Parts: sequence; C-alpha cells; structure tokens
Amino acid sequence: MSRWKITIEYTGTDYAGWQRQENVPSIQQDIEEAITGFCQQHIRLNAAGRTDSGVHAQGQVAHFDLEYNRDINGHSLAKAINAHLRKRPISIINAEKVNADFHARFSATNKLYTYRIINRPSPPALDQNKVWHFFRCKLDVSSMQQAAKLLIGHHDFTTFRASQCQSRSPEKTLGRLDVEEFEYDEFGGKEILIHAEAKSFLHHQVRNMVGSLVMVGEGKWPVEQMRTSLEAKDRTKGGPTCPADGLYLIRVDYP
Amino acid sequence: MSRWKITIEYTGTDYAGWQRQENVPSIQQDIEEAITGFCQQHIRLNAAGRTDSGVHAQGQVAHFDLEYNRDINGHSLAKAINAHLRKRPISIINAEKVNADFHARFSATNKLYTYRIINRPSPPALDQNKVWHFFRCKLDVSSMQQAAKLLIGHHDFTTFRASQCQSRSPEKTLGRLDVEEFEYDEFGGKEILIHAEAKSFLHHQVRNMVGSLVMVGEGKWPVEQMRTSLEAKDRTKGGPTCPADGLYLIRVDYP
Repeated sequence: MSRWKITIEYTGTDYAGWQRQENVPSIQQDIEEAITGFCQQHIRLNAAGRTDSGVHAQGQVAHFDLEYNRDINGHSLAKAINAHLRKRPISIINAEKVNADFHARFSATNKLYTYRIINRPSPPALDQNKVWHFFRCKLDVSSMQQAAKLLIGHHDFTTFRASQCQSRSPEKTLGRLDVEEFEYDEFGGKEILIHAEAKSFLHHQVRNMVGSLVMVGEGKWPVEQMRTSLEAKDRTKGGPTCPADGLYLIRVDYP
Repeated sequence: MSRWKITIEYTGTDYAGWQRQENVPSIQQDIEEAITGFCQQHIRLNAAGRTDSGVHAQGQVAHFDLEYNRDINGHSLAKAINAHLRKRPISIINAEKVNADFHARFSATNKLYTYRIINRPSPPALDQNKVWHFFRCKLDVSSMQQAAKLLIGHHDFTTFRASQCQSRSPEKTLGRLDVEEFEYDEFGGKEILIHAEAKSFLHHQVRNMVGSLVMVGEGKWPVEQMRTSLEAKDRTKGGPTCPADGLYLIRVDYP
C-alpha cells in the first residue's frame, strides 16, 4: 500500500463544497470516483481544508492510500485521475508518494488563502463567479491595509468565527493579512487581493475578516474599530461574511 | 439623436461569436436586446472587430445611435444596459457620447489581441475555456520570441489568412508580436501570453500566427521557417489555426 499526496485546482461554483454529502455534488466525491474509475479501488480522500460551496482552489492538498499492484509514478497517476475527471472543473496538478505518517490536514504547517474583489460599477464578465463584485463605492485600500495589520498575530478570533465552527479553540495565529490593489480595466476598475496565512483558520474566518476589512474600506468603520471588534470576542461586532465566490485556497505548506 | 461608444467585456464560450446570426446566440444580439429592453428602441450595433465563436473580449468597442429624449450620462446608460444583461457573461464597462462621424471599426487606429496558453500536463480547472491547454511538451519561449520578430512590419500575410477572409488585401502592418512567459503553478506549469497589435487583422490571422509560433516552440519548425512560411504567401505553408478559447480582444485605440 502507498500513501499519495495530491495537489488539486478547482472551480467551486457548481459544487456544494469539498466535503462529500448526500445528494449534492462535491469535489471530494468527484475525485474519489475518478480514482475508483481508473483502479477499481474505493478510497477515501483527506483534504487539508474543507472548502465551502463556491470557494475555489489553486493548491488544495489531499492524501489517500492506494493498494495498486502495478508500479506507477506521480505523473502517470495524476494523468489517469485527470482522464476520469474529464470536463469537470477539477484538475490534479501534482501527485507524489509520501510516508505513511503524512496527513494532508494534520501535517500542514501553513495555509495561504487569497480573496479577490473587483471594485468597479460594472459586473465582471470574464471573472463571473470567480470574484466578489463590490460596486457600491471605491474602497480605500490604504485604510484596509492599516486595519489588516491589527489582526496579525495570536488572538482569540471569536468575532470572525461562524456559529457552526467546530474548532476546539477560537485562538489562532494569523501570520499574514495583506491587502494589494491592481488596475483591472482602463476605466479605473480595480482588483483588490487580500492574502491570509495561518497554520489553520476558524470556519468562515477569512470571509468574515474580509467582510470587516471592506467595512473599513467603505468608510463605515474607522480603522481602529477593527481592534475593538477583535477585542469584543463577539461575532455580532464583526463585519458581514463576504461571498464565497472570491475565495481561493492557494497553497498548503508542509515541513 | 446621439451616437454612443460602448466598451464591452465578455466571455465568448457560449456564443456563436460577436455577429448576429439566425438561430444562434450572439453577443451583438444580447446587447441589442438589452438596449431595446431599457429604452424600447431598436438599434443596430457596429463593433470594432467581429470576434469568432469562443473568443473573449476585455475591451471590445461598438457604437450605436440612440434617439432617447431623456438626458442620460454614460455611467447611467452602462448601468441600464447591464441591468438588462443580468447574468449573461457580458458587461458594458464604459459608455460615452461621441461625434456623429465616430465609427467603432473605421475610426480605429490600433487593436490589441492577447492569446493565452497554459503549458503544463494537467488541464486548467480555474481557466477552463479561457486558455489553450498545450500539454504535449514544454514550449521553447525564447525561440517563439525570435520567430515572432520575423512577422513584425508590413507584409502580405496570405500564409496566415483564413480561406473565408473577406479583406480586400492580404497586406497588413503588424506593429507588435510579443511572447511572454509567467509562472502558472508551483510545479513548473507556465502561462504564455502572445500580444499582437495592428490597425486591422485578416480573418484568423492571430490564431494562425500563434499556431505557427507554437510549431517553433515545439521544435517542429526552426525559427527561420517562420520567414519562409511568410514569404511563401500560401496558407498550406502556415501552422494550424489554434483554438478560439485562448484569444482575447484586449483594447481598441482611437485618435
């Protein structure tokens, strides 16, 4: 038996999320069935992070154990799974054999999520379902950047935690929270990228932090309110949860 | 009556192309119907370039004449059309009043098309239908860049002209043909961008030039074959037409 680590790219729009559930499409189920399709073996995938419905991935990581007698390398395994995923918006971009003690979730030392906002009046036609279209006003990115700095470090993130979160503790260490702005079109439209890194996150933490940063960018919150919200340890003092469409699991790091 | 210039972003995947045709969806028809939807007036759009089925636009330009009694500014007009395009992958990103002698096609002084190639073994899941997935081998971008230089300038481009092309002359002036390469994923996957600028192009010229550049990148053609192909003035001496999916009309310039 061999343990395999796979890195996965996907568009989450038409899925109920990563996790297998009854009667709804999931990324996990499509990949598990593709693996069964090529080797007739039922396997169970373990992912680094269970992304929600509509959330995308550029570098999700999962592991599984394969009893497969023929010798196969990572390139051939990825190709075989991709052949069975044909036309689905899921792609295995790397596969490699790992030690039996490797665990996609528990061995992870760091995760990077990026949130994309298109800030302009007109809807995005090329990035439909791939960004949050924020059209109410021009966001003040420099205030958002200042507010983001106040969340970096080890804190109780209850203010940014979904009520259904199953994490044992609300304390997490946020290693990075950066706000960047780029030109998106020739008429003043902007793309805003928010990068969040931590070993692990609470449920909806990134989307709730982004919702709060946008309150600052809109001028509805002064920068300092980010600190008082965090210190309140109260979800009702945080900003709204922003849409899933703009969120990407970019990378998972291992020792 | 006022003449309006609109700039349009769209995903061409589910369309038979820009131009209105019987019984098939077209970008032109959807926008014309959206304009009629908000002002009950039948108008005819004239575009800078009629993109083919599957080709996308970041900055297509079109003009139309509106007899509309109420005073309206560009921002409100774009918003009204977008409201009627709801959920279609088409967006009016700018609208402005122009002089009656402005013509989206005939007044254009320069057009920029960009072609996107994803060069790696695994299919692109985040950019499905938005790029050409080239997986056979790693492309040699520096040879492609050298070959591209041989096409710049005023030439008879018959070798890169579709048989159904309606242009009066096969002579065009190619102002720019650039090949750029970027990291696309952490496993060596690359994105290759090819930028082509000219006042106007022959039918399929960009896709045929890209098909030929890829012959060079694959090592099937030496760099010098680009010159002999061009000089042959014979379509059978050119490379294949590459897929529509990777082509974007980026920008149209006016005096």
